[in-house]
Amino acid sequence: MYTLKNKKGRARRGVLETAHGSIQTPFFMPIATKGAVKSLSSGDMLDLNAQILLSNTYHLLLRPGSEGMRKLGGLHKFMQWDGPILTDSGGYQVFSLSKMNKTDEDGVAFASHVDGRKIKLTPEGSMAMQSSIGADIIMQFDDVAAGNSTRERYQEAMERSLRWAKRCKDSYNHNQKLFGIVQGGTHEDLREQSAKGLSDIGFDGYAIGGLSVGEDREHTFRITKFLANILPEDKPRYFMGGGMPEEIVYYVSVGVDMFDCVLPTRNARHGTLFLWKKDPAEAVKEAFELAQDGADDSRIAEALYQKIQITKETFGLDQEVIDPYSDSPTSKTYTKAYLRHLFKTGELLAQRLATMQNLSFYMRLMKELRANIEN
Amino acid sequence: MYTLKNKKGRARRGVLETAHGSIQTPFFMPIATKGAVKSLSSGDMLDLNAQILLSNTYHLLLRPGSEGMRKLGGLHKFMQWDGPILTDSGGYQVFSLSKMNKTDEDGVAFASHVDGRKIKLTPEGSMAMQSSIGADIIMQFDDVAAGNSTRERYQEAMERSLRWAKRCKDSYNHNQKLFGIVQGGTHEDLREQSAKGLSDIGFDGYAIGGLSVGEDREHTFRITKFLANILPEDKPRYFMGGGMPEEIVYYVSVGVDMFDCVLPTRNARHGTLFLWKKDPAEAVKEAFELAQDGADDSRIAEALYQKIQITKETFGLDQEVIDPYSDSPTSKTYTKAYLRHLFKTGELLAQRLATMQNLSFYMRLMKELRANIEN
Repeated sequence: MYTLKNKKGRARRGVLETAHGSIQTPFFMPIATKGAVKSLSSGDMLDLNAQILLSNTYHLLLRPGSEGMRKLGGLHKFMQWDGPILTDSGGYQVFSLSKMNKTDEDGVAFASHVDGRKIKLTPEGSMAMQSSIGADIIMQFDDVAAGNSTRERYQEAMERSLRWAKRCKDSYNHNQKLFGIVQGGTHEDLREQSAKGLSDIGFDGYAIGGLSVGEDREHTFRITKFLANILPEDKPRYFMGGGMPEEIVYYVSVGVDMFDCVLPTRNARHGTLFLWKKDPAEAVKEAFELAQDGADDSRIAEALYQKIQITKETFGLDQEVIDPYSDSPTSKTYTKAYLRHLFKTGELLAQRLATMQNLSFYMRLMKELRANIEN
Repeated sequence: MYTLKNKKGRARRGVLETAHGSIQTPFFMPIATKGAVKSLSSGDMLDLNAQILLSNTYHLLLRPGSEGMRKLGGLHKFMQWDGPILTDSGGYQVFSLSKMNKTDEDGVAFASHVDGRKIKLTPEGSMAMQSSIGADIIMQFDDVAAGNSTRERYQEAMERSLRWAKRCKDSYNHNQKLFGIVQGGTHEDLREQSAKGLSDIGFDGYAIGGLSVGEDREHTFRITKFLANILPEDKPRYFMGGGMPEEIVYYVSVGVDMFDCVLPTRNARHGTLFLWKKDPAEAVKEAFELAQDGADDSRIAEALYQKIQITKETFGLDQEVIDPYSDSPTSKTYTKAYLRHLFKTGELLAQRLATMQNLSFYMRLMKELRANIEN
């Protein structure tokens, strides 16, 4: 399923095979939370060269629901996306979105944030829902410890996640690829125990969970580097829920293959744009070399992009295009002044143009990282 | 500027020349209120075969403002639309959107609905703003009587509009094409006086204003037919702010050439869709023949379309595409169930897909009407 093609330092260039085609690694997954990347269609995602989309089991479980999803023939058909899809397990959203949730060894009981309906999600239930969705890559159901938990809570959540990992392995649909999720907070010994426990069970890939949840970035970097050294070499490694472009460059440089994050899309909807500072090939080459040399993340960021708040008055008469280096045609067509005007006047097109810019930035970043590892 | 190519009954097929290209008549103008058709880009409007866009002087006067618009090089450049643009005069929005407005012979003083700033719009000011915008076709500034006004008020507004028409004619930018607006409510004698007064001044086209503002449809039809008989044959006739597809078919059948309306776009944003009942060529042929035979408007509507509320539960599992007869690729790609899901879950893509459907319906309607007049 995963073929490692070559390495540069500890960075990995590979190919991940799925039922809906192969994916060049390392890669970034735009987030189609409820079956759509906010403001964009599946056709747009093809235009943006997205290789794979991520969708959220929790949201699809609420609407259209498990039975609805099955009757609709699964998510690929529903959203008319023929490429690969990864779904999370629902665990994180149950924990973060549901007002009321209660965890026991069986699973998590919660109330829907949409209509208050009471639902119980278990490892087996998550596998069943992800099977209804028909994702190519599915995630184990895990017990999610809050950021800044005690060591005891991290340990409890990690150990329960291991037991749940086994239950997922025993009940998942074998047409799908199942990933385990490493937990253990910022404690290396807990993380190591989790990684070993998961690889003993055996998964198609391994995710680094429970990071980018508010801890200092140095801990995130330390744990990620630590895990990338001990996770199985022949399986893809997935950093869940991160991050800023400079973080992704760093994680790739230490051997991570897969990413997803709301940052490009959520920032876009609030008018925060990632713009290339210079030709992307040059910028990413420089950033990647800095990461390999162990440079500070602020220097990596500095080489890559400028982040602007397009709603600022200074852009009111700015007739430069949004980003002359962008791969998104709209970013090379419309001016900063126009995009600002769309935001200030509440036009729906604002979200779309900004999202196209930020996602095209992330897509190009990954493409250039792949090229840098190959060369 | 306007060339009448041929007629069928009283319906007219012509070509309208503008500084940004020629437009085949009869035609419909999608509304780019603040410089964007809601949820769509100028590139999308090209894909939808829009020939011309309408934008609102009042909104552009507030943001980016007259000076901003001039510094930005006009609306064509600002929104990256190389085709023709028509702007209204601002009069109607001043009247309908501004909380406080006071009309005297000089013009209308009002408070911006955005920030309360006090502004005075006069015939000369409207011409200057429309010149800053750089529209190809501009409208005279008129005094707008509320629907269901007294005859006295209709007469006053009509007569003042005539005086203002003259002031517009005396002050407009001659690189633009200026249209007069016929007023007079539902009173034929007032309408006739208005039409004659305007044609004595002489304009590049004549608009039928003050209809579709709440009066019974029979009055709208009666006045429109009456005016289409007396307005100059060698100039385009523009029905402002209407209407439903069956109304447009009727107005075309009595000799109107130009239309604009928020119905397709506003309905779309609320999940109300116009869907073809059968092949558009057949449907419009039938509808046009019914209109020429003087059939009831409900029969014309019946031949043309079905109007559905996509948010209804009945579409929850409907796996038919939105509209198999649509010219919009997304309407032939995504299912009704998916579009309903997008609306129910608050996804921004919902507005976009629905707007594409409704605008493509209107664009195709006009195309088939043109074909029917030609044949």
